Amino acid sequence: MDPETIDSLVTKNESKIIFFIMDGLGGLPRDPGGLTELETALTPNLDALAARSLCGLLDPVGYGITPGSGPAHFALFGYDPIKTNVGRGLLSAAGVDFPMTPKDLFARVNFATIDGDGVVTDRRAGRIDTETNRRICGKLKKGINLGGGVEFFIEPEKEHRALLVLRGEGLSDAISDSDPGVTGKKPLPPRPLNKEAEATAELVTKLLEQARHILSDEDRANMILLRGFARYQALPSLHERFGLKSLAIAEYPMYRGISRLLGMEVHPVTGSLEGQVTALGDRYDHHDFFFLHVKHTDSRGEDGDFEAKTAIIEEVDRLIPRIIDMNPSVLVVTGDHSTPAVMAAHSWHPVPVLLASRTARPDHVKRFGERDCICGGLGRMPMMHIMGLALAHAGRLSKFGA
Amino acid sequence: MDPETIDSLVTKNESKIIFFIMDGLGGLPRDPGGLTELETALTPNLDALAARSLCGLLDPVGYGITPGSGPAHFALFGYDPIKTNVGRGLLSAAGVDFPMTPKDLFARVNFATIDGDGVVTDRRAGRIDTETNRRICGKLKKGINLGGGVEFFIEPEKEHRALLVLRGEGLSDAISDSDPGVTGKKPLPPRPLNKEAEATAELVTKLLEQARHILSDEDRANMILLRGFARYQALPSLHERFGLKSLAIAEYPMYRGISRLLGMEVHPVTGSLEGQVTALGDRYDHHDFFFLHVKHTDSRGEDGDFEAKTAIIEEVDRLIPRIIDMNPSVLVVTGDHSTPAVMAAHSWHPVPVLLASRTARPDHVKRFGERDCICGGLGRMPMMHIMGLALAHAGRLSKFGA
Repeated sequence: MDPETIDSLVTKNESKIIFFIMDGLGGLPRDPGGLTELETALTPNLDALAARSLCGLLDPVGYGITPGSGPAHFALFGYDPIKTNVGRGLLSAAGVDFPMTPKDLFARVNFATIDGDGVVTDRRAGRIDTETNRRICGKLKKGINLGGGVEFFIEPEKEHRALLVLRGEGLSDAISDSDPGVTGKKPLPPRPLNKEAEATAELVTKLLEQARHILSDEDRANMILLRGFARYQALPSLHERFGLKSLAIAEYPMYRGISRLLGMEVHPVTGSLEGQVTALGDRYDHHDFFFLHVKHTDSRGEDGDFEAKTAIIEEVDRLIPRIIDMNPSVLVVTGDHSTPAVMAAHSWHPVPVLLASRTARPDHVKRFGERDCICGGLGRMPMMHIMGLALAHAGRLSKFGA
Repeated sequence: MDPETIDSLVTKNESKIIFFIMDGLGGLPRDPGGLTELETALTPNLDALAARSLCGLLDPVGYGITPGSGPAHFALFGYDPIKTNVGRGLLSAAGVDFPMTPKDLFARVNFATIDGDGVVTDRRAGRIDTETNRRICGKLKKGINLGGGVEFFIEPEKEHRALLVLRGEGLSDAISDSDPGVTGKKPLPPRPLNKEAEATAELVTKLLEQARHILSDEDRANMILLRGFARYQALPSLHERFGLKSLAIAEYPMYRGISRLLGMEVHPVTGSLEGQVTALGDRYDHHDFFFLHVKHTDSRGEDGDFEAKTAIIEEVDRLIPRIIDMNPSVLVVTGDHSTPAVMAAHSWHPVPVLLASRTARPDHVKRFGERDCICGGLGRMPMMHIMGLALAHAGRLSKFGA
């Protein structure tokens, strides 16, 4: 079933739906047969909630597929993560929460080192620090002038990475990468992949010449490599698809950007998990769908810090009663993907999920953990269908057929 | 996998398959964490059967989707309920078990009230009783004359609803609804949606003028509103697809109509559940697939009567030994969808299922109930695949590939 099957069934009511997302929640035991981070954490509130919820496991994209944050969140919000194939440049723009407009063309930037002959000797410019990155972006912002009413933006990311944006009429993303992908070669000339892209290709060539000139006095980051050209792409919003007035309470740029891409209102950064929950309470009457995003479960997993990830989960558990007291029609607690500390990276493992609602049919699960969720009432299901299920439990889907 | 994947694998043998369907079987507890209707019912026979059967949960259409009886039964019989998208008018015709022919054009009728200016003031004519409905249908049957060799039929349904049928050569269903969908507007003129439909649109316009004239002396039901125009559509029959000589033993029009739509022979109404089981025994040697449909589990669920629905399930349980004594190759006991009494309506919740067969691999399920079926050997599966599984366990599917 396509997740779009539900769109024509959507009706509105006064119900409230909360998605409480612990990024990278799913884990693995440190020792064979041991407990995962979630199973190790003391979570009396989540366990009590699981005991009266539908539990299960969600596959973000598919068997064996490790998702990036983009696809994982598209799936959470009811978008087929494989069909919702936005360009990498666009995800980068979302990743730095860049204020996009339909006139924008995005590309991913690597600062690189080239030698006197223009041959790339280091595709990461020796991983310059973010401070240097910012300084160099400033130089380029000042120096680049494309004319023809085309605006230029460059947003520093971490180390040697940045986002490049061109804003103007009729820009095309049918442009080949200038990044040769290996050292020992010169940057490739950006080629137009169709007739319409010729003007844009010339513009990008001009840009690269100016950049090389402006950066010629840099010892390491003396060139930029571009890849993943992507135009702004409007996705059907949560409001268009589900009639939901939605609020994202996420602290990190990537998740704020993805939320904006899906037409969600994005709450100002609060600076703490407690602040996020307070914000949810404050805004509770003004929206009907809430996306609360906890980043540090993923960060500690990426650090390979099992105890720290466990501690974040326990911190979340202590906040659960405040969420329950808001008495939402549907409360979904899950992750966007797994980030086992023992792997110190995202993984393909399914993510435990619980769905609390008055219409949740009881199952045998009494604890919120990976192995207990295996026999939950939701079974193991594609993540892209959890939104439809939440809408159904909120009474927001009408009958299919006579 | 498309359910049609199995069609090319079908072989014949002497096996017998029985689908014992309790309409709206799936339920919910009255109190959080409590027992569902099926879990509450004393079902020693179904429990003993479940203990030696494959158990699981079936999703009629998809996650969060509440099916009407049409799509749910298409899924039961191995038809993709989303692709098998027959027009609403056709389902209405099936719903009153109208004897369809390939020349038929169907539409759903609402008797409505219009004022002196022809503006709709009540789209349901004050929900006239079924008796009045019958009387008015009689008037229209007598009065309407379309000429051009086109026959006119109108079949009363409940309250303000009826089925309209035009029978003739070259009728088109590309006709827009005349039902404005709201009060305060005049009925819409039926527009042809393509060139071929123009003649039919004129015919329907003529029909509506005659109907308005004939009903002008009625105080409430003085107009008809038409929607969901649909031509007769032949679906591949159970015999064509699976080589099954099938018999439907269903007492209610909708299910008899759907069975006919799928080319099943339909047994005369017996008037009781026991009569249905007796009919099954009497016709056992003459067919190889039997669809036994129990309506009242759904009716009592729709009534919101938890105890009554439970009682029906217990009544079914007492009849199970008679079915088992017939020694079918495959016995499937399930529902077409859930109708929790606490919701007094169809719902999206998956339906418990058991499949008894000599080749059923044992699982741990010892009781036939929703939460026990979660960990059954079938897991949670799309309903449209249960027919293929039944055919396999009946030895009626050959190997796929070398």
